[in-house]
Amino acid sequence: MSGKLIGIGVGPGAPDLLTLRAVRRLESARHLVYIAARPGTSMARRIAEAHIPASAHEHEVVMPMQARLAERAKLYDEAAETLRPLLAAGESVTVLCEGDPLFYGSFIYFLERLGGEFPVEVVPGVASPMAAASFAAKPLAIRDDSFLVLPATLPAEELKARIDSADNLAIMKLGRHLPKVRRLLEELRLDGQATYVAGVGLPEEMHCPLKDAPDAAPYFSLLIVTRRDAPWT
Amino acid sequence: MSGKLIGIGVGPGAPDLLTLRAVRRLESARHLVYIAARPGTSMARRIAEAHIPASAHEHEVVMPMQARLAERAKLYDEAAETLRPLLAAGESVTVLCEGDPLFYGSFIYFLERLGGEFPVEVVPGVASPMAAASFAAKPLAIRDDSFLVLPATLPAEELKARIDSADNLAIMKLGRHLPKVRRLLEELRLDGQATYVAGVGLPEEMHCPLKDAPDAAPYFSLLIVTRRDAPWT
Repeated sequence: MSGKLIGIGVGPGAPDLLTLRAVRRLESARHLVYIAARPGTSMARRIAEAHIPASAHEHEVVMPMQARLAERAKLYDEAAETLRPLLAAGESVTVLCEGDPLFYGSFIYFLERLGGEFPVEVVPGVASPMAAASFAAKPLAIRDDSFLVLPATLPAEELKARIDSADNLAIMKLGRHLPKVRRLLEELRLDGQATYVAGVGLPEEMHCPLKDAPDAAPYFSLLIVTRRDAPWT
Repeated sequence: MSGKLIGIGVGPGAPDLLTLRAVRRLESARHLVYIAARPGTSMARRIAEAHIPASAHEHEVVMPMQARLAERAKLYDEAAETLRPLLAAGESVTVLCEGDPLFYGSFIYFLERLGGEFPVEVVPGVASPMAAASFAAKPLAIRDDSFLVLPATLPAEELKARIDSADNLAIMKLGRHLPKVRRLLEELRLDGQATYVAGVGLPEEMHCPLKDAPDAAPYFSLLIVTRRDAPWT
């Protein structure tokens, strides 16, 4: 009997945005895996902390922020090599992800490497666009609207064309790209309809109109842009 | 002191996909509001049922499936008129929504009518595209991908153009629109990359490649379409 590869979404940051199912899976976890940019700094682990059993074996995968694609792939390969014999020996392996595991989540890297060989279970989580919208009390989509998620890391021209074609959107992974995105939204005259949200679920959480947002945004901040003016109903 | 208007996302269908925060808010709810197509059939209420206190006053808003936009607006107006004096008298009012309250959720209609007058709190939930992806173990987006959510209710030509411009997408509200969507995906040669998911979290949950999906899909079914072939990593 193989062990199961389990991906758990722990939500955007607040520990009470874990689902009941995530808590139950955590409480019975044998091997826990999480990514950290530097040792001891995993956000996903911190969110889940209260539910991690003392008996769990923890596998921290250090993935430096500046690592390039090939180096990242190698680090994921190595982590998968460590986990494969555990799964083959019947031990379940639980990968923690901020937000949702299959929505920009690092669980995808483990799924691709190990999912073909072992049974898989994925526990969905609250994703950051929904959490940000809730925090700012700003609707994302209704009725026949479409809703587009864009990473701010895209090249400016592509980003502009995609923003221009969208109804409502969330622009994620802002970080140092915020000034670029701000300029594009100004050019499209959508800057007045953009809400900036940072640090959802963390002590430093805040939201404001784009015009009041700092130029130096954290990586985990986002913009919600809605074309529709009130009323939506 | 006014009461608070609270929107709670109860997730896609499985009671254990409620968040801890949603459970806590439910347990102290005084006035509960939910939509039902026919009396006694609210899915959101059924999902939350185990946590509804016996002391809660329940306000069912019946919204017939075939009601047109103007009639719907009138029914929401009437419901808001019923809730306004409660909020003004200091009673909190909790609106239940399947999935997430601000992602195609009926809470938006209450927020627009009452949010300007009273304090608001929104508890985000697991949204159906993420739940469907988890159930099918199919990634939605990674790295610089964009991710588009489209309602199948859009006109065919608009739907086709939007699908064609997307990286990865979820097509929601399939219902009787599935044959139309299937034809568009075939024309775009994307039908082989589409996964059909229905009834997530319910006893009848199932997923399969689009080619094996029934032509008569339930309203709460969706397609996940990803352009990228494996490996994603």
